[in-house]
Amino acid sequence: MKNIVLIGSGNVATHLGIALRNEGYNILQVWSKQIESAKLLADKLDCTFTNSLKDLVTADLYITSVKDDKIAEVISNFQNINIAHTSGSIGLEIFKSNFTNCGVFYPLQTFNKEVDITFSEIPLCIEANNPEFEKELLKIGKSLSNSVVKMNSEQRKQLHIAAVFACNFSNHMFSIADDILQKSNIDFNLLHPLIRQTIKKIEKHPPKNVQTGPAKRNDKKIIESHLQSLEKNQQELYKLITNSIISNND
Amino acid sequence: MKNIVLIGSGNVATHLGIALRNEGYNILQVWSKQIESAKLLADKLDCTFTNSLKDLVTADLYITSVKDDKIAEVISNFQNINIAHTSGSIGLEIFKSNFTNCGVFYPLQTFNKEVDITFSEIPLCIEANNPEFEKELLKIGKSLSNSVVKMNSEQRKQLHIAAVFACNFSNHMFSIADDILQKSNIDFNLLHPLIRQTIKKIEKHPPKNVQTGPAKRNDKKIIESHLQSLEKNQQELYKLITNSIISNND
Repeated sequence: MKNIVLIGSGNVATHLGIALRNEGYNILQVWSKQIESAKLLADKLDCTFTNSLKDLVTADLYITSVKDDKIAEVISNFQNINIAHTSGSIGLEIFKSNFTNCGVFYPLQTFNKEVDITFSEIPLCIEANNPEFEKELLKIGKSLSNSVVKMNSEQRKQLHIAAVFACNFSNHMFSIADDILQKSNIDFNLLHPLIRQTIKKIEKHPPKNVQTGPAKRNDKKIIESHLQSLEKNQQELYKLITNSIISNND
Repeated sequence: MKNIVLIGSGNVATHLGIALRNEGYNILQVWSKQIESAKLLADKLDCTFTNSLKDLVTADLYITSVKDDKIAEVISNFQNINIAHTSGSIGLEIFKSNFTNCGVFYPLQTFNKEVDITFSEIPLCIEANNPEFEKELLKIGKSLSNSVVKMNSEQRKQLHIAAVFACNFSNHMFSIADDILQKSNIDFNLLHPLIRQTIKKIEKHPPKNVQTGPAKRNDKKIIESHLQSLEKNQQELYKLITNSIISNND
């Protein structure tokens, strides 16, 4: 399976396409509803591009990385091609029984086009509707990453939810910290060593075991004084998360 | 100010004491209410120890790292010594007018006795009740850390609140992710590359600008499907944080 068409041209398609090309796969074509976006990625991958699903060229494998709520619509245009989607949240059942070979190729990572990434370190979660196709997807996965795991749709969904907490929600905590500091003219960079240490701890210990802070100590005076100086939206978050940590102390 | 007495023997006192000793300061004595804990740290610092505040030896500087709600009680035993506390949340006013030289020496970091730390990378926030003493504390700070800043009590309080979000609350997000994965027999280590990338992004970009995920995309279907598979406590957190991210999108 050397000849691949990419359906989608967003963050995932971009990083995946570049990684595939670096490993010697032929990216034949990029499709995107927005022709400029298709062209942009096609230029990077040195291939053709289109905004018409009817005009896709013949390939060994079609990888669709469109938004989750567009997958069903996109794949309704096809049958009996070898196809995989890259979503954490969408199950294998979205392909119905329209494909002999269909599967999932989910890179567990947070992608921004403008932030570099080492693809070989990204865990790839593979699922397929039959052992032969699964083997093919695993083979491609292993050529791109040192961390390839088989995972069914329900596990992948749970992993995706965990990733939302670990990545999106922790990033939002950093974002609120940034808001608070900006108001007091304090540089967010001052928090970098603290954040790095927070990560260093959980690489060796379960997060629960290395929790620190006023909630962990159930230090009511400090918690109250913090609440008083927060804005309403921040206050609600502070309260709920603090209570959740406290209930974990038991 | 070479001769120092440590009042307290917890995580902060331990890491600070070791760093001070490594830089050639003489730690004369460790006080703790719990004599075993005082002895443990005194052994590490090769000094005497006591559990009686009346028996403290004469020193150039007394650094108190007791819990926030014990600071007032502890310092009520003294007057006219050179004293600093290490709390992010407690203002300089706690010393009242009982001391000619008093100040704050706040290391912005998350400390666990069992997790190693590079003290030179820890930002130290310094405040004092007069310029001369401030200069002394800044000098000690600069001998321990590459990142020493002057900061008043109100700024320090805001910084501490920001740190609670950036460190304690993000750690709780990791903890919930761990809970979710354990239920599905998935190894938490699988999330490490994602978490590392999340941190890498905010070292170069404001967190708000690199937010990703279902809330950022306002992907209602995925959000709803995630909510349905979460436990009640997790559900409430998911909802509130998601709404907070969505309101940030505007």
